Amino acid sequence: MTAISSVASATEADGTGSPGWAVPSGRAAARELVTPERLAEFFAPRSVAMVGASETSGWARFIVAASAAVGYTGPLLPVHPRHSTVFGRPAVPSLRDLAEPADLAFILAPTEAVPTVVEDAAAAGVRNAIVLASGYREAGRAGKQLEDELVSAAARHGILLLGPNTLGFLNTAAKVAPFGLTVPLPLTAGPVGIALQSGALSSALLAFARSQAIGVSTLASLGNEAMITTADMLDYLVADDQTKVICLFLEEIGDPATFSAAAQRADAAGKPIIALKVGASQAGQQAALAHTGAVAGDDAVADAALRQLNIIRVSSIESLLTTAAVFGYQRWPTGRRMGVLTSSGGACDIIADQASAEGIEIPPFAAQTTAAIAAALPSFAAARNPLDCTGYVLANVRTSALTAIDQALDAAVDDQGLDFVVSAGFAIPEARPPEPAAKLLEDRMAWVSARMAAAPIPVIPLGMTCTDVTGYARELLGSHGIHVLPGMELGVQALGNALRWQEGRGTVRPISGRVAEDGSPAVAWTEARARDLLAAAGIPVVPGGLARSADEAAEVARSLGTPVALKISSADVAHKSDVGGVALNLSGDAAVRNAYGRVVESTATHGGGSEVLVTSMRTDGVEVLAGVTMDASFGPVLAVGLGGIWVEALRDTSLRLLPVDAAGVRRMLTELRGLPLLQGGRGGATADLDALAEVIAAIGDLASSVSGLQALEVNPLWVRGDQIEALDVLVVVGQDSKHVEIAR
Amino acid sequence: MTAISSVASATEADGTGSPGWAVPSGRAAARELVTPERLAEFFAPRSVAMVGASETSGWARFIVAASAAVGYTGPLLPVHPRHSTVFGRPAVPSLRDLAEPADLAFILAPTEAVPTVVEDAAAAGVRNAIVLASGYREAGRAGKQLEDELVSAAARHGILLLGPNTLGFLNTAAKVAPFGLTVPLPLTAGPVGIALQSGALSSALLAFARSQAIGVSTLASLGNEAMITTADMLDYLVADDQTKVICLFLEEIGDPATFSAAAQRADAAGKPIIALKVGASQAGQQAALAHTGAVAGDDAVADAALRQLNIIRVSSIESLLTTAAVFGYQRWPTGRRMGVLTSSGGACDIIADQASAEGIEIPPFAAQTTAAIAAALPSFAAARNPLDCTGYVLANVRTSALTAIDQALDAAVDDQGLDFVVSAGFAIPEARPPEPAAKLLEDRMAWVSARMAAAPIPVIPLGMTCTDVTGYARELLGSHGIHVLPGMELGVQALGNALRWQEGRGTVRPISGRVAEDGSPAVAWTEARARDLLAAAGIPVVPGGLARSADEAAEVARSLGTPVALKISSADVAHKSDVGGVALNLSGDAAVRNAYGRVVESTATHGGGSEVLVTSMRTDGVEVLAGVTMDASFGPVLAVGLGGIWVEALRDTSLRLLPVDAAGVRRMLTELRGLPLLQGGRGGATADLDALAEVIAAIGDLASSVSGLQALEVNPLWVRGDQIEALDVLVVVGQDSKHVEIAR
Repeated sequence: MTAISSVASATEADGTGSPGWAVPSGRAAARELVTPERLAEFFAPRSVAMVGASETSGWARFIVAASAAVGYTGPLLPVHPRHSTVFGRPAVPSLRDLAEPADLAFILAPTEAVPTVVEDAAAAGVRNAIVLASGYREAGRAGKQLEDELVSAAARHGILLLGPNTLGFLNTAAKVAPFGLTVPLPLTAGPVGIALQSGALSSALLAFARSQAIGVSTLASLGNEAMITTADMLDYLVADDQTKVICLFLEEIGDPATFSAAAQRADAAGKPIIALKVGASQAGQQAALAHTGAVAGDDAVADAALRQLNIIRVSSIESLLTTAAVFGYQRWPTGRRMGVLTSSGGACDIIADQASAEGIEIPPFAAQTTAAIAAALPSFAAARNPLDCTGYVLANVRTSALTAIDQALDAAVDDQGLDFVVSAGFAIPEARPPEPAAKLLEDRMAWVSARMAAAPIPVIPLGMTCTDVTGYARELLGSHGIHVLPGMELGVQALGNALRWQEGRGTVRPISGRVAEDGSPAVAWTEARARDLLAAAGIPVVPGGLARSADEAAEVARSLGTPVALKISSADVAHKSDVGGVALNLSGDAAVRNAYGRVVESTATHGGGSEVLVTSMRTDGVEVLAGVTMDASFGPVLAVGLGGIWVEALRDTSLRLLPVDAAGVRRMLTELRGLPLLQGGRGGATADLDALAEVIAAIGDLASSVSGLQALEVNPLWVRGDQIEALDVLVVVGQDSKHVEIAR
Repeated sequence: MTAISSVASATEADGTGSPGWAVPSGRAAARELVTPERLAEFFAPRSVAMVGASETSGWARFIVAASAAVGYTGPLLPVHPRHSTVFGRPAVPSLRDLAEPADLAFILAPTEAVPTVVEDAAAAGVRNAIVLASGYREAGRAGKQLEDELVSAAARHGILLLGPNTLGFLNTAAKVAPFGLTVPLPLTAGPVGIALQSGALSSALLAFARSQAIGVSTLASLGNEAMITTADMLDYLVADDQTKVICLFLEEIGDPATFSAAAQRADAAGKPIIALKVGASQAGQQAALAHTGAVAGDDAVADAALRQLNIIRVSSIESLLTTAAVFGYQRWPTGRRMGVLTSSGGACDIIADQASAEGIEIPPFAAQTTAAIAAALPSFAAARNPLDCTGYVLANVRTSALTAIDQALDAAVDDQGLDFVVSAGFAIPEARPPEPAAKLLEDRMAWVSARMAAAPIPVIPLGMTCTDVTGYARELLGSHGIHVLPGMELGVQALGNALRWQEGRGTVRPISGRVAEDGSPAVAWTEARARDLLAAAGIPVVPGGLARSADEAAEVARSLGTPVALKISSADVAHKSDVGGVALNLSGDAAVRNAYGRVVESTATHGGGSEVLVTSMRTDGVEVLAGVTMDASFGPVLAVGLGGIWVEALRDTSLRLLPVDAAGVRRMLTELRGLPLLQGGRGGATADLDALAEVIAAIGDLASSVSGLQALEVNPLWVRGDQIEALDVLVVVGQDSKHVEIAR
């Protein structure tokens, strides 16, 4: 939400009080207003009042232009305390003066005038309003107070609000556009629904959409989301028949629980969500902090959240809309085996490289396909996948016969070994060529369109590079319902995104979301206590026992069998090995006794005390990390990676928001670069990944069930074949949560 | 080089023999023809003959159209055995029939007719020719023979050839375009020189260049590079005054030594090279194999080679040309501290994320800058970097005052803490707006242009998204010499590329290139022999000695001190530990004797023999890999990474083509993800990276000096602090090179 300043004059409304009907007040009450019916009504008003509109207001001018762009024919009613006409339309001083209530009031008035306008709206029976002004939540504590008051007032009057700090929305199907920003023309109606947390970015999205003939259903700038939130917009777009795919620009995910529930509904409805989520960089997070009133969470966690919600994350406007175009205009590929048809060896190479990066396969053609394609090609061209039809496509283009690339398409779509075909044979000129070329081209497009529709598998037209689709090309392709992806890089990346979405369908589970912040300082448990917690939950820990003297240590060691490890067990010693609190690989009474003394002595100045944990040594095998931390926004997060010092050195970890079951943990393990080590590096035993996943899932469940927990980390979790043991455990809780309840 | 088929009719030339003047024959002789003077002449002909051109030839039609596109006014002379006029121009039957020799003959005739045309060209005194036909090197052994004959004939006659299997070239400065492919119009002259190994891709490059108003100097399709090679094109473009930056599309780097020497000259001349090199994927390599006559090398090695040559590698046409546009149209940034000016918080976030990915900093503004910018902004906007001028930019645009973003620009360019500024304030409409807006906009652009020119640091205009620059926007920006980068993702990535190039300048060294293939089977040395080789070269090896009996083993162990390791030392046992040929951590005579017996017994069936290496054990410390292998194209390649099983598991290695000095190895170490382990993970000692680099550089030098070497691998190379020892050494040589000479 970018801060927006209204340049319109203040509306000098009369301040008459609100009507007497009782509605609940406050944010909670506001939520009750946001129903599917009210959202549908909100985004399809039949009359719009512009409150505070003057001819010098840039916003008002944009609303007038945007309304024309979508073909709005309803009333657009200026309301201004000092002007009798605005843009040649008669203006009234207040919403109360309108003959009948407008379906929607776009409040352009400055911040200080907004409360009065809301009262006017209520008095006039207006049920929906957009508030453009900034100076609310994004402006600090006083602004937050103002925003709360605004929401309470609106809720009290049953008024549904978009904003504040928003540029409004446009809806091409309802042909209405209370939208205070430039709309690049022509604006095409289409299947892509868009919601943005930065309204000013809309122009750029609409510009790229226009250039690629990508049509929009509803686009909304969400502003501060005081009432209508991103999650609400998801619900609205899921319900909206015009919308096939949803694009989000996200600076923050304000309420993970609600957001994830909406994402789950979108997934169930088969409407893909693609998100340009910013904040990937530290610098990016600073920018988000500077420009919004909310704290951007840790990006790795947000990234994990989006993946778990099957929301496809992209990093550019171009990728966002190109991926949307695949879902909006193409038949959806359901598998990763791609046929590639081009007229350039170089294009084959580029596409193959991009496909490899996306994990898309380019398998050999079936024998029958090869034979059919070979018959259409000159002898010097190889009929293989990816296919270079060579310059020979030029040779036939002036006859009534199909070009070589069309003949190849005709054959490839029947190949049982392919899931879809991309064809780069759609280079249409901007201007209609002279006859007979135009007639031939138009006949060819008609044939291609029909063949694409009848083909057993999707055919995806791919442009050679990212340039505008204009003029004759736009018309000819559009008239045949053919949409061409903007270039090999963007196009193949978008196909990879679409496949990932398909593969993720049905796996979406709501995430628990933000935890109440304890605020008390974090304290660690002794390791002995942490081990007991794990053991009580059925998680295997390395055999061991607590010793309070050298004698006891030797006794425990004898009972375990040698070699053993000794570790100080103290809540006050955080990094045991750094202060001499660990002794490894000890054999024999004397060595154990000596080590006990050393460990206690070394840690004495750190408050180590006399309790020492004696455990069996584990040397072979692989060390894994399984840890749960609390994210301020998303709640408990499970991290799995290679353990020991490798965690920090290699940053090879997979993250998931809890809860995660064993199957989910199993997938996390496959994401690790270090997976080959678990699968048995040279000389190592193959880890039982299913058993390991069960143990880690149990660690996640345990962490979720401990109230007040701030961190639970098993590092290393030792694995050799199906032997799995926690070698070292850390539990951190809020100081005020010392008496932990285990809810199981 | 995509196979190209000529559809022109065969030229029925008379076959009269060549003139009598003696020139050297063969490929070596051909090289003598390729001089700077001849290349300059070749790419600027004042008359062009089209041999085999008929009106049904698509290629000829394209040549005519391309010539018109560049404003060619010289003779374009059809030569055809059966047509008296072609495209309304009088045709002659043979090159011999032209009144005076054409500067260049574009031979469109089919493969079988080419030799005759070459003889005709020679007889007519033609010095330069382009051969379009395919069926040469790319078509197998017979084609290779044909190509050799073609080159010999041309060289014998002193004719310089482009191709065969090429679409020709265009040169906007010389206004000549013997180019057999569509040229998207308008074609702009400009600073970008382009050479492609896939000619058919030219259309896509030219289309994107046109859409972004990126001008081209010379573009050439190189085909089979029978005479004029990629390296020659580099030399030509480096010498060409019109060219400021060079774009390559590469499927292969045919002759690394020559190519790298040309790259070094380009670097010295300050002309950046950007390469879209394909073959990053296995699938990509198959495509390259299918479509060229050459073997694409291992991509990781090619990638290392390009980095060493300071050639910026990109993966898309869009990135290739956007990076070229930075060098061609912008003042070059010389540091990584970027100021960012936008009118959208969302844009700030996107740019910050992209910048972070590119390692570009966005530091805070200086106090003075902040103050100046704050004065230009409304109170609710924060004057920080990245800057969101907010919707307020709209408020002032209709007055004669500068917009807020211009005032911010005026201040930011004087900020001593910035190296350059990107400004997203260049959204110009496609059509001229009504007055007074047009006048204000034009005044504003004039001011911006002047301020950019006078600014102490570069100002880079950045578009919000990748759409065409057309109409009024193109004219207005062009008239003020302002070039806008196509979108935030492409633009910031291109800036990152440009900075990498700047930082790499002056470090380019020629690489030794392809080694003569031995062809004989590879054989390994015994480890004892390999250790001796290292020791002789002054490389530290772990103390040890060879034992031929259990007694000897025990004796060596006693002399070393315990614990020790035993390893079978046999040329026939490749993976020692897999067959029980290794025993670790042995203490005491008995243990060593026993281990000797076990090792010999276990490996007996594998030809282990009785020689066992006894060495000191090294346990703490970090294990590194330093290995040299021979790449079929690039010669010796040094790989450095974390050692032991981590090599295969984590694929965390850095590659360089030899030679590399210690400073170069030091940089390789910093590229490793595992660097923190060397710098002292928890509890570990910090490795002396300088000493380590010296040892690894010595290993590289040693490998380079051993004739017949196929691989030299030290894994692990053990490091603890400044203690560095080779623990395990493998030397592999060609069987016929058993008597290795060490050239030192």
